[in-house]
Amino acid sequence: MSKVQVENIGIFGGGQLGRMLAQAALPLNLTCTFFEAGIDCPSKDLGAVFDSTQANALQDFIDSADVFTLEFENTSLTDADALLTQKALYPPRVALATAQNRLSEKALFDQLAIPVAPYQRVESEADLRQAAVSMGLPLVVKTASGGYDGKGQFVVREEAQVSQAWQELGAAKLLIAEAFVPFVREVSIIAVRGQDGEVRTWPLTENHHHHGILSHSIVPAPNSTDLQPIAQDYITRLLNHLNYVGVLTLELFVTPEGLFANEMAPRVHNSGHWSIEGAVCSQFENHMRAVAGLPLGSTELISPCMMVNIIGQHPARDAVLKLAGAHLHFYGKEERVGRKLGHVTLIPTQGNTLEALSSALADILPEPLALKG
Amino acid sequence: MSKVQVENIGIFGGGQLGRMLAQAALPLNLTCTFFEAGIDCPSKDLGAVFDSTQANALQDFIDSADVFTLEFENTSLTDADALLTQKALYPPRVALATAQNRLSEKALFDQLAIPVAPYQRVESEADLRQAAVSMGLPLVVKTASGGYDGKGQFVVREEAQVSQAWQELGAAKLLIAEAFVPFVREVSIIAVRGQDGEVRTWPLTENHHHHGILSHSIVPAPNSTDLQPIAQDYITRLLNHLNYVGVLTLELFVTPEGLFANEMAPRVHNSGHWSIEGAVCSQFENHMRAVAGLPLGSTELISPCMMVNIIGQHPARDAVLKLAGAHLHFYGKEERVGRKLGHVTLIPTQGNTLEALSSALADILPEPLALKG
Repeated sequence: MSKVQVENIGIFGGGQLGRMLAQAALPLNLTCTFFEAGIDCPSKDLGAVFDSTQANALQDFIDSADVFTLEFENTSLTDADALLTQKALYPPRVALATAQNRLSEKALFDQLAIPVAPYQRVESEADLRQAAVSMGLPLVVKTASGGYDGKGQFVVREEAQVSQAWQELGAAKLLIAEAFVPFVREVSIIAVRGQDGEVRTWPLTENHHHHGILSHSIVPAPNSTDLQPIAQDYITRLLNHLNYVGVLTLELFVTPEGLFANEMAPRVHNSGHWSIEGAVCSQFENHMRAVAGLPLGSTELISPCMMVNIIGQHPARDAVLKLAGAHLHFYGKEERVGRKLGHVTLIPTQGNTLEALSSALADILPEPLALKG
Repeated sequence: MSKVQVENIGIFGGGQLGRMLAQAALPLNLTCTFFEAGIDCPSKDLGAVFDSTQANALQDFIDSADVFTLEFENTSLTDADALLTQKALYPPRVALATAQNRLSEKALFDQLAIPVAPYQRVESEADLRQAAVSMGLPLVVKTASGGYDGKGQFVVREEAQVSQAWQELGAAKLLIAEAFVPFVREVSIIAVRGQDGEVRTWPLTENHHHHGILSHSIVPAPNSTDLQPIAQDYITRLLNHLNYVGVLTLELFVTPEGLFANEMAPRVHNSGHWSIEGAVCSQFENHMRAVAGLPLGSTELISPCMMVNIIGQHPARDAVLKLAGAHLHFYGKEERVGRKLGHVTLIPTQGNTLEALSSALADILPEPLALKG
């Protein structure tokens, strides 16, 4: 038995996910360092930040920790490769590379017989026009890599928009055209896989978006009893195939024809923030346990709950804190339109139902997004 | 509404209590700095530590934060006075001064009609001899100030030991002799008072010691339904009388004649660590809310639970983490005999009762103390 048993974990990225990963890691005697463009980031309160815009910062970062992970899914593969000649990275590089390219991701879903909406590879305006004919309209066009939170997307609703879509996105050179799925709702499944191959899965979460950004999540997703084992099966196929270590998220559409995989994120996910208070072991703690080679914690639900994002503007802190059952998480970020500044997890108490809490919170948030219906 | 709403809170002390206070404060956009002898302390991962052994460190510490609190009950009153000419300190100085002297503390309990065991002031061996005669043996002799975790105490069981007791403790010049209370068990009540005077109380905790150090706490204290309102009344008298802000702990003996106050601690307390997972709002978060002038959170119990201290030696981390329902908190400290290195909170899960968890944990801890009965 070592004297203090403190290990250091290096995290690519220094945003709120890194901040919450480090918060969860500390009580296990795991400390963190971060690699981020500019050192004034949400993770700075929890460990040294190495500025990725500076020469030599990558090597200093590599020297700073024993094992590595990421909280930013567009982590540079070149940086990952430099690291991998020296130290271990979890999740594995292949998961990162696959998630960074929508075409590779869809190919993997196909390979593992995980249903997806019809899609086509698009490398020219002619490709796009052909896709519109063969798959019909509307058509969702996305850059193969680099997009997030609704950016890098175009919905072609009539043929005349094909040129416009290509003009807007064609610079990316590689696009994907997806058939429009008349989905009823979006859910996500989050799971963690340990270094010994053990897999644990949290309950399905129902996600609501507003202007392409996650507004709120409900757990467990209503009427999801039949969907849970199917989603669990899909994510387990991915985890095992990739020999994955850490937390993986799979976004799914619930359609009349069943579950369709939308995309995966090789990291902890906004739709799993509720697990800090709502599960026995959170996505953050379990990710760090997996990365450090420790046994996984229970993903059992403590209580049905809801997570609401704080976007663009901070609410009056006092008003949120007065709500018994509202758990506030600010990220220490400056206000900016469309920026995620924090979240609130709502857990029913003896005095407040989830419905009452949700309604009270909607009145408090400066920008309640989809919460107010 | 400010752009980021981050305030800084200065904490006298940088031990595990400071570490857990800062952990709870961060999601509220409250950051912390610390004042500690030597900067290598458990709080160092969460904010700047000012080394109290260095000249000018006090002023630098005072400059570093907006409002101040303490996690160390022997915080220097001289330092507090220097601070108070410039900035606010919560809890108030009077609470700190009173808690640092057992005679002042007893006098306050008397004044507020909070029952205590018979006691006498002792300034000489003759005083002590007289106390032994008038109160009878056994007699518990303590230094009026400076003792903790069973240090600075002597139990006089026969008259011949009076000289020995004086020899051991008399250097302190001011002692207190307390009648031996045939108590059945020790409980503690923890409450928080906001800047607006609101008081909230957690459920009574039953505390078990081993060699003078807290071994484990059980919440709620068994058979405490009748005791809860009485203890709540006592601590509320203290809080209101002292115009207190923050968390206060009151240790009580359960005796055949009712509850007797033992001592108070003007800070978050080891017997309240269970509240991180076991209460809607923990003692740490509520203390920081109070100090920052924010509304208090709910002290409602989420589940009956148990807190077990890790003392002297780290257990095998894997073994603790394998127990579903065991929440591990290490403090990042080096091993030393009798030192608190961490704690584990046990919360029943679907698979594990509290009894099963407690029994499994007793087999894992290298020094199970009183847990194994």
